[in-house]
Amino acid sequence: MEGAKSVLELLNSDFETECVFATDEFLSANDILNKKQVGEIVRTKASLLSTLGEFKTNNTALAIAKMKSIKPVTIDRNEFIVVLDDIRDPGNLGTIIRICDWYGIQKIIASPETAEFYNPKVLHASMGSFTRVALFYTELAPFLSKTKLPVFGTFLSGENIHGLDWGTEGFIVIGNEARGVSREVEKYVSKKISIPKFGEAESLNAAIATAVICDNIKRNPD
Amino acid sequence: MEGAKSVLELLNSDFETECVFATDEFLSANDILNKKQVGEIVRTKASLLSTLGEFKTNNTALAIAKMKSIKPVTIDRNEFIVVLDDIRDPGNLGTIIRICDWYGIQKIIASPETAEFYNPKVLHASMGSFTRVALFYTELAPFLSKTKLPVFGTFLSGENIHGLDWGTEGFIVIGNEARGVSREVEKYVSKKISIPKFGEAESLNAAIATAVICDNIKRNPD
Repeated sequence: MEGAKSVLELLNSDFETECVFATDEFLSANDILNKKQVGEIVRTKASLLSTLGEFKTNNTALAIAKMKSIKPVTIDRNEFIVVLDDIRDPGNLGTIIRICDWYGIQKIIASPETAEFYNPKVLHASMGSFTRVALFYTELAPFLSKTKLPVFGTFLSGENIHGLDWGTEGFIVIGNEARGVSREVEKYVSKKISIPKFGEAESLNAAIATAVICDNIKRNPD
Repeated sequence: MEGAKSVLELLNSDFETECVFATDEFLSANDILNKKQVGEIVRTKASLLSTLGEFKTNNTALAIAKMKSIKPVTIDRNEFIVVLDDIRDPGNLGTIIRICDWYGIQKIIASPETAEFYNPKVLHASMGSFTRVALFYTELAPFLSKTKLPVFGTFLSGENIHGLDWGTEGFIVIGNEARGVSREVEKYVSKKISIPKFGEAESLNAAIATAVICDNIKRNPD
């Protein structure tokens, strides 16, 4: 993890940190010694941090943590789960993780072709939300074929989400940036939905669509 | 403009095109000669296009158009206008233009420090919507000081936008990515609003906030 905000979020999470490289300024401003599992602390110059990591602008801190072991996904009652059908852009994935965290959605199920959770661009764009939202990669069609819960999928010709009765649980499928929901996954969509358009743009970005849908789900019933 | 979609949107717009560089494939697939003001057409190899432009992946077409002359903004009755208080990231600005186009918002007023409309990254992220949404740059505080219309501004502690009575017109101020709405502009915000949070993320990206607010404005009254 790179940057002050992401490193602090990491140290406050259940990820196990192995090592923190940080400037004197960062260490003075943030009492990280009292964090559990902070690992080794290496004082370093700001100029060195950008050469250690992915981001040229990092001049505060960098941390190395263990990836979490992969557990099978469990579905709770009264839970909405976001399903990503090949979201390829790491920035989009990170932004979607942040949106899910904002709207209290704690699980994302992603196709194997979706961007990699541990990609530095994903972690960075999530603005720390990667510590609170769990991502599970699996083949979507076999997974969705087994569920009895509603599967909502975004299509240009689906039912208007304004005023939709969402019920209390289900899956929200977000399609690929260029081609939308794949045919294979479409078979298991039980409810096609659509974000109403009032102007001329052809489509909305996948992360934007996710946010608008989450906001519609979480608002009080119309 | 670079890429098939953007070039076609340009040729269908009221921008004056001076020249189009395109591959044989693009010219066969798209009958652009019947467009008004297509300007000079130069047949070119796909491999040359990426060297001419900003984007390495462009292998279809590139067009050069005249920038529009700057006109003073006019405010119509029953119109919502998005106001950008230092949106620095070109990708965010392009995405906001696309969102406005989707939701039928045709004007954006931006602070002078907002990213430049004609930046290739802005035009690209707008996915063609730059032809349908007009951007006006001006100092926001003097501009907003003169309006009698409602000025909505996003703050973490504003009124919940779910169920808000928006009326039929006004300005929607979106704050800078890092520091939100500036103090100077805040003085002219007549209604502080807030996107309700159901989880733990600290904030939402500026483009995401714009989309959620536009969706709330345009839905039927609760």
